Amino acid sequence: MASKPADPANSPADKPLLSVLRGGRRDPVPMWMMRQAGRYLPEYRELRASQGGFLDLVYNSDAAAEITLQPLKRFPRLDAAILFSDILIVPFAIGQNLTFVAGEGPRLTPTLLAGEFDELTAYPARLDPIYETVRKVRGALPPEKTLIGFAGSPWTVATYMVAGQGSRDQADTRRLAYADPARFGELMARIEQVTLEYLSGQAEAGAEALQLFDSWAGSLSPEQFELWVIAPTARLVAALKQRHPYVPVIGFPKGAGGKLAAYARETRIDAVGLDETVDPLWAARELPEALPVQGNLDPLALVASGAGLDTAVNRILDAFAGRPHIFNLGHGILQDTPIAEVERLIELVKGGK
Amino acid sequence: MASKPADPANSPADKPLLSVLRGGRRDPVPMWMMRQAGRYLPEYRELRASQGGFLDLVYNSDAAAEITLQPLKRFPRLDAAILFSDILIVPFAIGQNLTFVAGEGPRLTPTLLAGEFDELTAYPARLDPIYETVRKVRGALPPEKTLIGFAGSPWTVATYMVAGQGSRDQADTRRLAYADPARFGELMARIEQVTLEYLSGQAEAGAEALQLFDSWAGSLSPEQFELWVIAPTARLVAALKQRHPYVPVIGFPKGAGGKLAAYARETRIDAVGLDETVDPLWAARELPEALPVQGNLDPLALVASGAGLDTAVNRILDAFAGRPHIFNLGHGILQDTPIAEVERLIELVKGGK
Repeated sequence: MASKPADPANSPADKPLLSVLRGGRRDPVPMWMMRQAGRYLPEYRELRASQGGFLDLVYNSDAAAEITLQPLKRFPRLDAAILFSDILIVPFAIGQNLTFVAGEGPRLTPTLLAGEFDELTAYPARLDPIYETVRKVRGALPPEKTLIGFAGSPWTVATYMVAGQGSRDQADTRRLAYADPARFGELMARIEQVTLEYLSGQAEAGAEALQLFDSWAGSLSPEQFELWVIAPTARLVAALKQRHPYVPVIGFPKGAGGKLAAYARETRIDAVGLDETVDPLWAARELPEALPVQGNLDPLALVASGAGLDTAVNRILDAFAGRPHIFNLGHGILQDTPIAEVERLIELVKGGK
Repeated sequence: MASKPADPANSPADKPLLSVLRGGRRDPVPMWMMRQAGRYLPEYRELRASQGGFLDLVYNSDAAAEITLQPLKRFPRLDAAILFSDILIVPFAIGQNLTFVAGEGPRLTPTLLAGEFDELTAYPARLDPIYETVRKVRGALPPEKTLIGFAGSPWTVATYMVAGQGSRDQADTRRLAYADPARFGELMARIEQVTLEYLSGQAEAGAEALQLFDSWAGSLSPEQFELWVIAPTARLVAALKQRHPYVPVIGFPKGAGGKLAAYARETRIDAVGLDETVDPLWAARELPEALPVQGNLDPLALVASGAGLDTAVNRILDAFAGRPHIFNLGHGILQDTPIAEVERLIELVKGGK
């Protein structure tokens, strides 16, 4: 990782987060927070209330760019902005209808419970407004900050496409994958292809790093994990490397547990995100020494605050002190997180102002 | 583990499963299946239809004993019977009301969302009929079979007691544990005490091994895992060892992932059950060589059948060939599992008849 080429137009020396993703070490470590552009921010809630639904917001590139930048304005010591969007934009571009039901989460129709996706009409143009957001954010971003684009991993996206919504244990999709792996493989290939174009388009528009969210990687048996998480991720990483050699890819296989090292090794991903259940001391022993890691504070520890927050933060910082490390939460920041606690967290990670 | 005392009244040499739990190796390996007494069996569905609700069945010791023995009658090469009961018997004995709503799962009232458990009136006598079932099963069990008793681990039981039901990510209970650890610790201590008496009572009634089901161990951060999984489990194991030195305890911390080795080492449990997401090759490297392991076929692989079942079974058997191993599923057997597939699985594990 230390031997990676440096993009002369994109000097990682001036961007702490990019520098760490390329194998460097920084003290203090760079940090950002999953879902940092979200409902715990009053300015987000205000902007959101003045707009239509969630999807309207994602497709309004001015609003989406503003939301993407909100956390950096409020917390100038954060090192990255992450695109404000949703992993279900990909199914929407593949042709499913996408709605966000208040209090219930997203719905995709029709479901694909029998793998019947041939009739879906693809709308690749549904991805274009997202690239516009990326361009706007990149244009407005302070030079030392990194812009992270993202997509869901094919497996996680497939679980929503098949069930039409989030589902307990992803059982419907796992059943389909076991019952008809060839058919399921065709759906996965379609998702993989669109995801490659989508991430590639984000990089072209100015994303400097990319994160693959694999929120449901944790429900798979080892054989299925190899087939539906490791193999497609490895292909995506290889294809992205060919097209955008200077754009590192962070993989976040939530719940992968003991399969993390195999994931890192076999996908050749540039960095691994750790969820909040991973013991950082174990991860530091288990993962290759030069591999950048990202994580992994429990978002509930941030809400609970108190001395427990200091202990948890220090355990993470100490465990990863010898390696490239990006501080982050292990899951998205919770809605009821007090702003003052985020400020305290930033001081804990970055040192007093 | 190889140095454990042998109970002269309970010769492990004649009981393959007990022998493995004491550190021996057997070829073929002993096996049983989580939820093996359950709805995939026509004889269970028939008996169930003739009775009242689920709780009536658990409290009818004749019926519960018959159900416990059903899988051994149908599949005589299984090596163990596991008590037919439910982990929520403990909250019921602590004084919550327990109902099973058809199609929705269990409900405990009142919930303990603010930790307000002082008003609950304990009913220890609610445990007595369970011991009666254990006695009846033990009396009827073929001598080479092992009778396994069980309870939920304190953490998993607490998640149901607090939320009143199963809950996504166990967020309510995790919040309470962060917000008021002293209060939550008192609830945990109460559960731990009743669980100790309950498991001890089962051992006295004739259970020859005990399993602690920690179904929701996987949602905790490392610090919380140490506090609420490892510490209470270690205390339970130590107390049970004092009272019943010949009764091994199997821990099943579902979703513990990379924290499995710490769990095994620090709880001093006799054996560890692995869920279906654990790669057996990784577990064989990660866990102490002499530690008996149990698992870990994906129940969906059994339903799906085909060549994938052979591959998955062989991966497990091969990975654990050098150590004490009990074959099992990584989760409860699914309702729609064909009987013929269970027969095929037994042949795969035990060899052709």
